[in-house]
Amino acid sequence: MFQTEPAPRAGIPVPMIAKAMLKHPETKYRPFLSPVDLPDRQWPSRRLTKAPRWVSTDLRDGNQALANPMNVEQKMRFYRMLLDVGFKEIEIGFPSASQTEFDFVRSLIEGNLIPDDVFVQVLTQSRADLIARTFESLEGAKKAIVHLYNATAPLFRRVVFRMEKAEVIELAVTGARTMLEEARRRPETTWQFEYSPETFSFTEPEFALEICERVLDVWQPTADAPVILNLPATVEVAMPNVHADQIEWFCRNISRRDAVAISLHPHNDRGTAVAATELGLLAGADRVEGCLFGNGERTGNVDIVTLALNLYTQGVDPGLNFDDLGAVVRTVEHCNALPVHPRHPYAGELVFTAFSGSHQDAIKKGFAAHETRNDGFWEMPYLPLDPTDVGGNYEAVIRVNSQSGKGGVAWVLEQDKGLKLPRRLQVDFSRRVQVLADETSKELTAEHIWTAFEEAYHLGGRQTFELVSFDDTRSPRGGTERVFVGRIRKGAEEVTASGRGNGLLSGTVAALNDQFGLGIEIIDYQEHALRRGSDSQAAAYVECKLPDGRVVFGVGIDDDVAAASVKAVISAANAA
Amino acid sequence: MFQTEPAPRAGIPVPMIAKAMLKHPETKYRPFLSPVDLPDRQWPSRRLTKAPRWVSTDLRDGNQALANPMNVEQKMRFYRMLLDVGFKEIEIGFPSASQTEFDFVRSLIEGNLIPDDVFVQVLTQSRADLIARTFESLEGAKKAIVHLYNATAPLFRRVVFRMEKAEVIELAVTGARTMLEEARRRPETTWQFEYSPETFSFTEPEFALEICERVLDVWQPTADAPVILNLPATVEVAMPNVHADQIEWFCRNISRRDAVAISLHPHNDRGTAVAATELGLLAGADRVEGCLFGNGERTGNVDIVTLALNLYTQGVDPGLNFDDLGAVVRTVEHCNALPVHPRHPYAGELVFTAFSGSHQDAIKKGFAAHETRNDGFWEMPYLPLDPTDVGGNYEAVIRVNSQSGKGGVAWVLEQDKGLKLPRRLQVDFSRRVQVLADETSKELTAEHIWTAFEEAYHLGGRQTFELVSFDDTRSPRGGTERVFVGRIRKGAEEVTASGRGNGLLSGTVAALNDQFGLGIEIIDYQEHALRRGSDSQAAAYVECKLPDGRVVFGVGIDDDVAAASVKAVISAANAA
Repeated sequence: MFQTEPAPRAGIPVPMIAKAMLKHPETKYRPFLSPVDLPDRQWPSRRLTKAPRWVSTDLRDGNQALANPMNVEQKMRFYRMLLDVGFKEIEIGFPSASQTEFDFVRSLIEGNLIPDDVFVQVLTQSRADLIARTFESLEGAKKAIVHLYNATAPLFRRVVFRMEKAEVIELAVTGARTMLEEARRRPETTWQFEYSPETFSFTEPEFALEICERVLDVWQPTADAPVILNLPATVEVAMPNVHADQIEWFCRNISRRDAVAISLHPHNDRGTAVAATELGLLAGADRVEGCLFGNGERTGNVDIVTLALNLYTQGVDPGLNFDDLGAVVRTVEHCNALPVHPRHPYAGELVFTAFSGSHQDAIKKGFAAHETRNDGFWEMPYLPLDPTDVGGNYEAVIRVNSQSGKGGVAWVLEQDKGLKLPRRLQVDFSRRVQVLADETSKELTAEHIWTAFEEAYHLGGRQTFELVSFDDTRSPRGGTERVFVGRIRKGAEEVTASGRGNGLLSGTVAALNDQFGLGIEIIDYQEHALRRGSDSQAAAYVECKLPDGRVVFGVGIDDDVAAASVKAVISAANAA
Repeated sequence: MFQTEPAPRAGIPVPMIAKAMLKHPETKYRPFLSPVDLPDRQWPSRRLTKAPRWVSTDLRDGNQALANPMNVEQKMRFYRMLLDVGFKEIEIGFPSASQTEFDFVRSLIEGNLIPDDVFVQVLTQSRADLIARTFESLEGAKKAIVHLYNATAPLFRRVVFRMEKAEVIELAVTGARTMLEEARRRPETTWQFEYSPETFSFTEPEFALEICERVLDVWQPTADAPVILNLPATVEVAMPNVHADQIEWFCRNISRRDAVAISLHPHNDRGTAVAATELGLLAGADRVEGCLFGNGERTGNVDIVTLALNLYTQGVDPGLNFDDLGAVVRTVEHCNALPVHPRHPYAGELVFTAFSGSHQDAIKKGFAAHETRNDGFWEMPYLPLDPTDVGGNYEAVIRVNSQSGKGGVAWVLEQDKGLKLPRRLQVDFSRRVQVLADETSKELTAEHIWTAFEEAYHLGGRQTFELVSFDDTRSPRGGTERVFVGRIRKGAEEVTASGRGNGLLSGTVAALNDQFGLGIEIIDYQEHALRRGSDSQAAAYVECKLPDGRVVFGVGIDDDVAAASVKAVISAANAA
């Protein structure tokens, strides 16, 4: 059968790159120039005023990009979460690609797991047998979108498929016709058709338009029975303004504009998919396909969570519910086995946190003003979104390390213990915390800070002076004068100290000065309840001057407001 | 001293949010409307044709956002890496904020660790004592940028500082004057001044312009001695097109445009910092402050790595060297103790990987075309950047799981073993791999795939038929006919089989058919060297038809091209 044995062909596993190009890699790329000239573009002057139609493609595009694709349990969990979030269009798979994919589609339909208002969407290549198999998988669905695609870009025509333009169009048109026939045979389902000139973003715009027109010629959509034209940035090759120009050009030039929904499907190779989508929506698109937290091939599909939550601060209802974003994060991390980054917008563990002193100070003032204003509007320095809108709280808003200042430390004590330190006490305490943070070079937890506070203001353990009990009575001399009589433990011995003054504090100070010769003078005082409610503890703060000119602070915490004040003075005495 | 004890004030640890607002959070935000009207904006029609001045602010803005700020060893390692990458402007700290920060600046200067062409940059608030301390820290530096900032936005004036506009201007102007005086006292240093109207992006544009003009009045920059005006998006509150409008408006309206460098400092709260920066550069900015991989407060500063590498594919030299991006990732992860996400553009472990069959197939064809074309230009389906440009390789380009197809499996065998499977053998083998992947629901490594290949084509272990030795001689009958005589082990016994044909393959087949009654017919054959070089092994593939119509494949690998062919036939015999 073989006349001669063919010569072995050398296997070159990777292309050789000229060394010179490695030093200046930019010389080996042809810059992507905008293929449309749109000097009268309208999108830069527009605003987003409503949410687009959202499509989750996590179970298809996202799933096919995972090292370990989801198993059935994970897919099901993800699907239910998507329903909870409020998606009404969900791409659930590529049923003609494998038995697993086919079976998952069947299980949703046969398990009656698709709500009446939800369209499930499946992807198919343009081949009659695959399209037939795709429709077979959807048998009995109430509502379904069948999504046909073929690659249209020059690189793909030339290198991957070796097809002329006419052949590429013929491929799409044939598929579109087959879909129509398959759908007509199943009138019990409400069908939507979707066509993607895949690799739209680097296809000649005129050719992308032409192939879409030819598909529309087959489908004959109307305003009442529209179809979807999806314009993928399969690979993000251009700046987002170029993407927007491409979308606006397409929207302006497509015939039957009222009979088609223009859909975006951006990937994130240049890190600008969110922007490309937002500008694409300004440019006229109606619908967005993406994945939660930007999962998907390579750098991922556009992140629908960020897009949706960006709308909040534009005053627009996104139509998706992320009020327990933490639960969504947990489900996605479980199913994708990929982390959500600590700095991921809205969802990362650090994104509502300020470590720097000046930021902390501003946030603290912002919360105070918010409380005072009480108009419900959110205007907070360094916190564009209220973390409670996504199920968070204010505990992580300020965390303390060596970069933090008094505001941050005070915030932590307020959040954790309910203490509202007076300003000068904040300064005094934050100096001590700064020393500690510099020493450890580590974040200080609320517990560290509380321990430091107890030490600094003599609140726990054995102290020089401790209050055992006290009486505060009207002076027998009459008038407003009062008499303080306290049992004070000093070291091992317990003594009685008494003093007179025009109030509890001055009486206490007089008693201590008299008994122990301290010479304390109170220069400021504040007290507040630690929490709302009548059974709350009180915290009292005194700022005192000593005979040598030093200023010391005292802090007292007690169930009784009077005892808290007395303890604060004794705390200052311990500092003296 | 106290006439009456003040009533304890209830401590409300967090503001109360109306429940109704929680269900529709968008109602509590005032949308950020573009503060400039720029219908004749120029930026959307422009292209990026050169790199901006890059400033790393990792050691300052990045560092202050870490739970555990860098220690001195980490800061020093990060700093050296920034020099290696090629940064010429590096913000190294906030020396007036703490002793640690001050000492680090001193250690760079006293250790003579700043190259002559590098400007170190430090941040200062506008207070005479802090500015004095800042200049003190820079004593003896050859080149330094002192960066003055104060917050200018209405929210900050009203809530944080309670200052009127005039006071805010006065604060900036006084600081600018102090800087001038401090600098004049130290003429041995080449100084650059930088001013940031912090919170520029939500400051009234006219006010931001005014305060900058007043600062310029003090500094009197010229084209030969320019200053830097840095326009931060301290919190990202707007879409990137609005940011670009703000920057273009400012560039158009600032006097002495030729005497100032316009600098951007975007944060990523809306996930669009890279886009905002790119559009801001189109809008006229000259300089970008950011952090590697987008570290920084909350969602981070803009990611300079992505920005720089985006320029490659625009055909622009970024002026930074990331040709060993893996090493940069390791340093940053070590120093920041934060991960680079697997889908991070250019740097993530998954971003050059295709799992899906159609993508893999296209990439494989792309590499083949690249090799054939041999013009050095990079045009690769689904791989916008050549991974070798950032120190990567092609091993991870294709990974195999249940979503993969024949192209992917073939790629792995080619990369890993040098095998170039014929197309129909690819199909045969990928079906087996698909079954395996569906069963395990896990990614298949190169090792898994090789084991499956050995099993499928009877390459290892005990097989029914094994070649012991063979001779291939010219037939004594003359002509082109040849005689094959082989020693074949079948189970425990060894037999001699001989056959004739017009070549080695047909002789081998005749021998096996005659000896064992197999009825094999070869329908296709290929062979190639596994690697370049004369000592490379060869791989041979045969496709055979059996009497019952089944098609089986055989694979043979041997140092000798002839033995590889014989083994391929025996491999097919084992399949039969």
